[in-house]
Amino acid sequence: MVDILHRVGVQTSSPEKVYDALTTVEGLAGWWTDDTSGSADVGGVLQFRFPPGGFDMEVVDRRASEHVAWKVVDGPEEWVGTTVDWELRQDGDYTIVLFRHQGWREPVEFMHHCSTKWATYLMSLKQLVETGEGAPAPRDVHVAFPD
Amino acid sequence: MVDILHRVGVQTSSPEKVYDALTTVEGLAGWWTDDTSGSADVGGVLQFRFPPGGFDMEVVDRRASEHVAWKVVDGPEEWVGTTVDWELRQDGDYTIVLFRHQGWREPVEFMHHCSTKWATYLMSLKQLVETGEGAPAPRDVHVAFPD
Repeated sequence: MVDILHRVGVQTSSPEKVYDALTTVEGLAGWWTDDTSGSADVGGVLQFRFPPGGFDMEVVDRRASEHVAWKVVDGPEEWVGTTVDWELRQDGDYTIVLFRHQGWREPVEFMHHCSTKWATYLMSLKQLVETGEGAPAPRDVHVAFPD
Repeated sequence: MVDILHRVGVQTSSPEKVYDALTTVEGLAGWWTDDTSGSADVGGVLQFRFPPGGFDMEVVDRRASEHVAWKVVDGPEEWVGTTVDWELRQDGDYTIVLFRHQGWREPVEFMHHCSTKWATYLMSLKQLVETGEGAPAPRDVHVAFPD
């Protein structure tokens, strides 16, 4: 089992602001993909759609301004059953976001791609909270093709 | 043991061009850090310096336009003894770069940071080869603080 790990610091923010961007359809649509729908409550399922496909995530945990966790219930075969975990805390002027996409069965080439792509989406989340404008799909940063 | 994995596709490039950016002091200075020196031959040591510190990498393998590997011989404690591995291949109009920073002893918070930061440097490498201008330190993309 191998994991994708990332960390960003969101400047002049608060854990509440980042938490909102992770737990509302509007917030998620502002940094990950325009085409976000569903329920962000615990037990609900969020649908994220991109030009090449999409993911359905069951919300398995949310603790205000501290923690969010999703389980992938539909999407690419390599993703189904994996979990996406977000930890938030304040450190001075920065909200620290610790990200883990856990439970990949093998370090396949697609996992390498997803790791780089997650980094660009975390930068989009940072940018959304810092400036009010992220870079969600289909206006996302391209790291290769098709992505 | 946990690894950082990434993948980018460099457009309208060739494995030779990316290989040059990984195996010459001038190339490395164009995307990772201005302050690069040393020998890029097998058995040589490259010195990469950044405002907060640096890394010394022994070149342990290079095969023209296919593979480059470094071993970290000096730098932050968590990095020493780890290896950085680059695989290159052509796929249509893209040179695919598979990156692995292997042998981390623990998935510490610093590893999360380095994973995101490596992604931004790989995007800098892509940008250097595609446009002639990367974003090496000290003009690098900031993902948190201090970085």
